Amino acid sequence: MDDGLLIVISGPSGAGKGTICKKLLTEMDFLKVSVSATTRKPRKGEIDGISYYFIEEEEFIKRIKNGEFLEYAKVYGNYYGTPKDEVFKQLKEGNDIILEIDIQGALQVKKNYPMGVFIFILPPSLKELQNRIEGRGTDSKEVILRRMECAYDELNYAFEYDYVIINDQVDKATEKIKHIILAEKNKAVRNKAIIRKIREEL
Amino acid sequence: MDDGLLIVISGPSGAGKGTICKKLLTEMDFLKVSVSATTRKPRKGEIDGISYYFIEEEEFIKRIKNGEFLEYAKVYGNYYGTPKDEVFKQLKEGNDIILEIDIQGALQVKKNYPMGVFIFILPPSLKELQNRIEGRGTDSKEVILRRMECAYDELNYAFEYDYVIINDQVDKATEKIKHIILAEKNKAVRNKAIIRKIREEL
Repeated sequence: MDDGLLIVISGPSGAGKGTICKKLLTEMDFLKVSVSATTRKPRKGEIDGISYYFIEEEEFIKRIKNGEFLEYAKVYGNYYGTPKDEVFKQLKEGNDIILEIDIQGALQVKKNYPMGVFIFILPPSLKELQNRIEGRGTDSKEVILRRMECAYDELNYAFEYDYVIINDQVDKATEKIKHIILAEKNKAVRNKAIIRKIREEL
Repeated sequence: MDDGLLIVISGPSGAGKGTICKKLLTEMDFLKVSVSATTRKPRKGEIDGISYYFIEEEEFIKRIKNGEFLEYAKVYGNYYGTPKDEVFKQLKEGNDIILEIDIQGALQVKKNYPMGVFIFILPPSLKELQNRIEGRGTDSKEVILRRMECAYDELNYAFEYDYVIINDQVDKATEKIKHIILAEKNKAVRNKAIIRKIREEL
């Protein structure tokens, strides 16, 4: 059996990654989520082991040294990382995993697992991005300013990704990603086992 | 504006390329078809300039020498080819072109236009392939035998393609190709103009 898909949803903060991922998980029930580890404090409503694995910085650094992360990054003073073992186990079992991560993390995953499907979510405009970050009401003015500056720099990375989705309407953006996921399942390189089987029959 | 998609539908004779292409053209009305040139005699119901451009061998060879074909091949004693000028003009205008061609032709197109979307249609089994070719009732026993031998060899080329579709049910196979077409439109390399625009606004 061929491996499942590792679908990496990434893009600037406020582009709408989270909303899109939630919608995808509802509408494509075969998708599994990868839970990240972080040293950031839980936001209201976030649950340990579901939203994130919330761990202390000392423990996080120990795991980095042990090579236990598929990717990790320090963003706005906090560490975020994806545990390798969980993800690889799921892929080997043929499960499709969705990974919502920032751009630094996505580029590391690409290096460690180039077979992944890398999708970059773009805001339709700078103004819209600012509105969304402010509307979330979770960040200080300073943090918002830093996020906006980052977004500008991060656009340079769009071409490191396989796909780029402009998130002007969440429904439309989600539909596009659904097509991508269903299309990627038919990639020749992902169907070596099946093609081999037909050839043997012939 | 970025170029349209050149969608190349290929695979062994009898795999169902033609039926799938007809269905795609009905269900995705933005797709345009590329009309091939051939020296083969028209089958019943085929119309010159729509099914094919039916031309004489002398004229065909002249056009090969002039480099007027995106691809050409001699198959079962007849020449088949895709005129370059028509296809490139359509792509530049942003139109998506669908090209139904044999494997030799598809590999040439890949060399000349690697930005194309290369889709390999596979029969679910050898027996099914034989049933289909015989059911068509247009080929002699000798031709059928040659086609079957070719199909076996041609399976080796599956990995030269981007996607592989097993055509066990035409509806399902067509659905998969629709996902591929809609997904490919979001490829980062195909959206340079749009990404540049957003970056300039930011």
